[in-house]
Order: sequence, then C-alpha cells, then structure tokens
Amino acid sequence: MYPNWILQRAHLTPTRTALNYEGRNWTFEELKKISVERAGQLTALGVKPKERVAILGPSQPRLIFMMFACMHLQCEMVMLNRKLSKHELEYQIEDAQVEKVLVDDEDLSLLPDHQKPILFSVVESIMGQPCEISKEWDMEQTISIMYTSGTTGYPKGVRQTVGNHQASALASVLNIGLTEEDVWLCAVPLFHISGFSILVRSLLYGNAVKLYKRFDIEGTIMDIADGHVTHMSAVAVMLQRILQGLEEKGLKASPRFKLILAGGGPVPEKYIERAHRLKLMVSQTYGMTETSSQTATLSNEDALRKLGSAGKPLFFNQIQISDALSPREMGEILIRGPHVTPGYIGRFSEKSSTIDGWLHTGDIGYLDEDGYLFVVDRRSDLIISGGENIYPAELENVLLSHEAVQEAGVCAIEDETWGQVPAAFIVLKSDATEAELIQFCSERLAKYKVPRYFYFVPNLPRNGSDKLMRRKLKELLQ
Amino acid sequence: MYPNWILQRAHLTPTRTALNYEGRNWTFEELKKISVERAGQLTALGVKPKERVAILGPSQPRLIFMMFACMHLQCEMVMLNRKLSKHELEYQIEDAQVEKVLVDDEDLSLLPDHQKPILFSVVESIMGQPCEISKEWDMEQTISIMYTSGTTGYPKGVRQTVGNHQASALASVLNIGLTEEDVWLCAVPLFHISGFSILVRSLLYGNAVKLYKRFDIEGTIMDIADGHVTHMSAVAVMLQRILQGLEEKGLKASPRFKLILAGGGPVPEKYIERAHRLKLMVSQTYGMTETSSQTATLSNEDALRKLGSAGKPLFFNQIQISDALSPREMGEILIRGPHVTPGYIGRFSEKSSTIDGWLHTGDIGYLDEDGYLFVVDRRSDLIISGGENIYPAELENVLLSHEAVQEAGVCAIEDETWGQVPAAFIVLKSDATEAELIQFCSERLAKYKVPRYFYFVPNLPRNGSDKLMRRKLKELLQ
Repeated sequence: MYPNWILQRAHLTPTRTALNYEGRNWTFEELKKISVERAGQLTALGVKPKERVAILGPSQPRLIFMMFACMHLQCEMVMLNRKLSKHELEYQIEDAQVEKVLVDDEDLSLLPDHQKPILFSVVESIMGQPCEISKEWDMEQTISIMYTSGTTGYPKGVRQTVGNHQASALASVLNIGLTEEDVWLCAVPLFHISGFSILVRSLLYGNAVKLYKRFDIEGTIMDIADGHVTHMSAVAVMLQRILQGLEEKGLKASPRFKLILAGGGPVPEKYIERAHRLKLMVSQTYGMTETSSQTATLSNEDALRKLGSAGKPLFFNQIQISDALSPREMGEILIRGPHVTPGYIGRFSEKSSTIDGWLHTGDIGYLDEDGYLFVVDRRSDLIISGGENIYPAELENVLLSHEAVQEAGVCAIEDETWGQVPAAFIVLKSDATEAELIQFCSERLAKYKVPRYFYFVPNLPRNGSDKLMRRKLKELLQ
Repeated sequence: MYPNWILQRAHLTPTRTALNYEGRNWTFEELKKISVERAGQLTALGVKPKERVAILGPSQPRLIFMMFACMHLQCEMVMLNRKLSKHELEYQIEDAQVEKVLVDDEDLSLLPDHQKPILFSVVESIMGQPCEISKEWDMEQTISIMYTSGTTGYPKGVRQTVGNHQASALASVLNIGLTEEDVWLCAVPLFHISGFSILVRSLLYGNAVKLYKRFDIEGTIMDIADGHVTHMSAVAVMLQRILQGLEEKGLKASPRFKLILAGGGPVPEKYIERAHRLKLMVSQTYGMTETSSQTATLSNEDALRKLGSAGKPLFFNQIQISDALSPREMGEILIRGPHVTPGYIGRFSEKSSTIDGWLHTGDIGYLDEDGYLFVVDRRSDLIISGGENIYPAELENVLLSHEAVQEAGVCAIEDETWGQVPAAFIVLKSDATEAELIQFCSERLAKYKVPRYFYFVPNLPRNGSDKLMRRKLKELLQ
C-alpha cells in the first residue's frame, strides 16, 4: 500500500541532488536508473525477489546502488560489518542462511576464505535481465537485517521492516523539521542503522546525502564551518574530534548548519557545552538496532536545559521505565512503537522481540519529572561492587571532565573482596598521574565508585560505529 | 499502536503555543487539559467512547476543545456544515444516526427545530465524570465524518480514519517541510477537511494555529505582510482578495511567510503570477473529503514552471488517469494511498469507496510527460455541446484573465440544437459589456466554447469553503 521509496522519490523530485561523494553528484533519477539496472543484473546472477542476501562493502556509491537494487527486489539484506573478524562474519552468514553474499571487490579479503561471494564488479558488468521491481512495498516486509553487537553470548540478527524504517524517518522529521536545503553528512557506516537510516530519510525527505568513505575530520570540519551540510550523525568520539578541530582552527559552525545527532551511547555533558560555544547544535539521541534508529531525541529547544538527557520519545514512540513508580527511579528502559523490530532471524527466530508489546532494551535509565529520558547505562556493563551498583558511564563522564583526559572507558574487574571493582582505561592528551586522577575522582564520586585501577593506553576498543566496547577493555590487559 | 496525538503532543512540547485566537494563546498542555476536562463533561452527559456524535459551531477555540474531547473518547464526529439549510442538516443527522448533537449556543438556531442538541455551554458548565481517555489510537478508527457537497443526488458521509488523517499530514510535511517557527493561519471552516486538517497537522507537527472565526481580509493581509503566520490554506476567491488587498496597500509578503496552499478547485494562473510578484508563494493543491485533504500539491520549486498544475502526488499517494495510454490524455482521475477513505456511512455504507484499490474521483484531468497532474474539471460539471466536451474551468480561466472580471462561473444551459451550451456568470470589478467579453473569448477559445449567454451578477454561489458551486449557477436565473 506504500510506494517503493526509490521510484516514488525519483518520480517526485528527479532532478534534486540525492548523493554527493568525492565531488561528484547523483540525482534521485540517476540513483533510480542505476539501482534498477543493478536489480536486473542481480536477477541475471540468480538473485530472486525477497531472497535473503548478505552485503559487504565500504561506504561508497556502489554500495548504495547495490542496496537500492536489493530493495527494488525486496530482498532481505544482511548488512555485514566491515570491522568484524572472519570468524564473526562466518557466524552471521551461517546464522542468516543467506542465498548470496555480495561483496565489494575491495572487501573480498575480509570474508571467510571458503565463501563464494558475488563481487560488485561482476554485478556491474553483467548484462541485466528483465526483473520484477516492486512498485509498492508491504509494511511488514523485512528490508534489512543487522546483527547487534551482542554484549554477551551470540549476536542476534534483527529484522528491520519497511514499516520500521518508515516510521522512524517520519517520527524524526516531526522532531527535527525539514527544508529543501537540508544535506546530511554521512560518515557513520552504512551497515549500521545510524548510516542506513540516513539513506532512508534521504529517500523519504528528498534531501541530499554527502557521503564519506570514512570519517574525514578535516573534510567534516570544513563542511560544518562552511555550511556545505546541514545535519550529521555522530558518536561521542567523532563529536569530540569535531569540537577539538573547530576549536584549534578557531572556526565556528556555519549558520546554515543545523544539527549533529549524537548517538551510540552517552555524550559527555561538557561536549554539549563546548558545542554550544561553537554555535554547533548537538542533540543527544537514544536508539538501537532493534528500533531502526532513534527512539528518543533531545529537541533543539531543550539541548542546554536538559543536559545529559536523550530527550523525549519521538512522536510515534513511547518509553517506560520498568517497575518505576515515580520520576527519577531507575530501571530497565522499555520501548513501544511502530519502529520496534518484529523479531529476529536465525537461531533467535523463535525469540519474541517484545513482551506485552514492549521492547525490553536491557538498558538502564530513568525519566525525570518532565518525562525526559536519561540513559544511565547498558545493563550488561553494570558493575556491582559490594552490593552497590556502579554505572561505568558516570565514571567516564567524570574522567572526561579532567583536562588531561582525551578518552576514558570503565569496566569491571573481578575482586576477591568486593566481587567487582571499576577499572579505568585512559587515553591522555596531556600529562597526568594516576594519583592526580584518583584525587580528581575522589572529589567528585562516592568512594566505592573511584576506579581501583588506572591503565594508560594509546586508544580504546571501539566497534564499527566507533562505540566504546567496554567488554573488550579487559582484553587490553592481556 | 499509535499514541493519542493530543496527549503525545502535550507530552512532547507542553509549553509551545498551539492556538492563537483574537490575541489569546493556548499551549499544547492547555489544549490537552481543557479537552480532557471536556471529555469528562461529555461523559457526564452520557456520551460514550466510540459513539457517533454530530458537532456544529463556528470556528473558535471552544469548538476545537469539543472536537479534541471527542477524539479523546474516539467518538466518530459528524462535522456539520454551518452554511447548510435546516433541511440539509436534517438529512445528515438522520442519515448518520448520531447519538448526540453538540451545538455551540450561537448556532442553535441553525438546527432543525425538533432537534434536542446538547449546547456547548451545558457541556462546559457541568461537573465532569471520570472517563476512559484512549492513550493509543487504532489506525482504522473513524475520527471524522464529512458529507461531500454531492453534486447530484444525496450527499454521502465520508469516513476519515486516524490512519487517513495521519498519512495525509505526514505526506504533506515531506512536501512542504517543517520548522519550529511555523504558524498556520486557519480561516477555512473547521467542519471542512481544509480546516480540520490544519488542526491535525498542528498536533503532529507541534506548530501553532492562528484561528479566525471567519475570513478576515484585513487581518490576513497584515499577518502575511508582517510574517505573523507562515502558512495558510485558501480557495481561489480568498486568494484573489488577498492579492488585491496586498496590491492596493502596496504590501508584499513577509520573507517569513512561506506558503499559501490553494485548494478547493482550480486557481486561475494569473493569480499565481500576481502572487509571485508579491513574493507570495502559492501552491495549487488537489484534494477532497475522500482523501482527508491533499492528494497532490505543486511543490515550491515547480510553482512557476508548471503553472496551472496541481503538482505531483504526495509521497505516499499514487495517481492514475483512467484509460489514458499516454501523457496529456484526459480521463477520470484515480487515487490510491493510505489517505483514501475506507468508505461511507448511512445509506451509502454498502458502497465501496474504491475499485481494485483505487478511488474513482469523478474528476477529469491528465498527467503531463513529467507526471504533473492537471485537473481539468469535475466530471459532473462537464458540458457537452454538439458532441464536443467543454470544461467550465477552462472558460472561467479565460474570463478571469479579462481586466474587468472579478469572478466568473460557467455552467451548461440546455439548448435545442446543441444539447448544451455554456453560460457565463460574471461579477465585474469595472465596466465591461457582453460584446467586449464575447470578443475577448473569441480571440482565445474555439468558437463552440465561447459562452452563449452572459449574466452579470453581484456574487456567485459558493459552499461553506467558498468553493464555486456550478450547479447552483442556473438557479440564479430563476
């Protein structure tokens, strides 16, 4: 009942710029033509409508053409993460039981050796065959499957349907607004929901995407300062580098630049304050693979008033805190809305994604008296020390407010007396001793929260979207 | 699965201005509180959830409070048209078999005498009772029922569901865009879809509505020139008065003013050109009761390039021309999308609103080679003269381009020789003779299209939303 986004967008605004990459532009009509051609080429190679395929490639236009071709065929795309080990990719390909693996020639070496993938170059060069392009899409059809980083146990393949993505994009526009001049900078991976959702919004909104193959700090700073783009999505570590870059160059954001959507974990409050001094609007957002991007986002008008909050739910969404009877009571964050995944594939296909219609996120947070969400931590990262709960993000926030600290990550280390104690992993930007940091923390935290161990490291383990992977911190010690 | 718009909007942006009327403001939180109170009061008076009620009143805040109260109870609101005769209202109330009639005290005299309505003042003064406010709304639930003007035979009560209204508002935002500063001027009746859809958009978008009880040309001109509002909906005759007013006062639209959505029939092309000289953006739109407002709208970027067109479908919608094999072939306009009514009530409840999923509008139009819709005429107004089809709108367009003509309406008059011939009804703004107009038309139209009769009249028959009622033209002669 809803039209194919790619065909409809090309029909409505064929000549508008859809994509900019390394100085070259593609209109929506061009995106449509190329992706329809690719759909015919995939058909010639035996890919059938609604079949499940895996896709692997760096963020460049040919990957978008391939994804859109799969969408024309309404294939279920398993988005493979380029930062995974062969062992991890093997698991996903096997678990998803894909019919085909499509891989950018550049990334062939990332795949397990015994795989027989179809190279992008082969698709691009074969003579296409007539194929059935769905002119209308079913809301229930799975478009993309993304494996969650899986803090413990086996990663789960999460279904994201046409309806999930559409609801997410529509709820976002009601929060962020829209003008014809909007251009989204995309430097987050397309295989993650943060990047793929930028493509979905572009199709629904008709706005251009400026795509980067990888996060290019110099290019990004100039885009923001010159107003070549109006929006971007970033995780905290990217934001930190943008702030530092603008500060070092003495630049401010262009008045044309509107917003950085900051997700993938909590953004230290001091970043938001620094951003505002640079005239850079930053909205903390809370989202995940299971919700096809944002569930809550702090609106512009509240960015400074509600520092540290991930905002209120977007229009179609609802948030509850499990068992909380009053504001500010902490508990598991529960989510409801048309953006919530209908479920999983593979070995978790029997597992329901919701209980009584609510997604149980495993994340810990609270709602304040005005209904603003504060995400305290991922439950799996919770440190329990002598019966007291310690939330790593809180400690990291304190450490990051120290002038010598560039990055900080905190995890639990086993302890005979207390069960667990917190350990801090620090990337320094100027000199500081452990004693200084302990002193600094002691002034700001209850005694049991002060990290017992400090490790100074050159960098922190992060996943494909630069999110801090706390469970990998301990491996740094080995 | 979707939240109650009123509760959710008040939750998300409680302190934003929702409504402005005669210098007074109400926030979304205030709208919520009052409407929830009214829901309790309606409950005390015996109104039950999901019951069908009729509502009659002029456009003022108390009407909005009452409508929102009914929406909390998910009542089916039959929107009574204040311009109808008692006889016509009687038909609708009887056909809809409403449980209650709610009437603004001011409009009591408009109702058939034997009706026992509930006065707004009674609702407003009674002690409320606890009631069940739906926190979530079912997409299939009928919110509003509007009777179509019904060019022939009996008027039909058209269902407009939560899903219809929501899809319409969401498709519109993807076309028009959205900023936090947007303010819609509402001077079209709230009992028509043109007005009610402004309220729906306000709830979804979080923008303010500046409400007028009736079209106030002086106030509107100052709102547009000073930028107190950013958007408004208008029919051609309102647009003409705005243009004339701005021209006479030597004013231009404020840069803050964005758009007049011009619907309810074709807008003469010269109006669009005059508007652009006044820096006033005007988008011709094509919509109807059965589609809960717009189906197609000309986007800003095409306003001058595609003069006379109603644009392309909004993002979720599709348009076809019945039996047309190539561009510019005329035929019946067919519409498909989530905004199309599921059907009718009363004596037409058995009648399907669609055939094979497509709404058959009865309107005549064509799509040009780029897919732009041109609405040629309402089928029921078609004049057939000697086997030739004549579309009144085409003749009116020509007449309106004459400098002495203020308004023009064309209809068929029976003729022994030709079956029908066109007759023109003219409101003059300066002197002109019949001979001059015949000469003017002859230079611009095929001979068979030149009106055979000219009638100079003080005004033209228009319905509640100021749309020209061509079938009533002939009655002017009696």
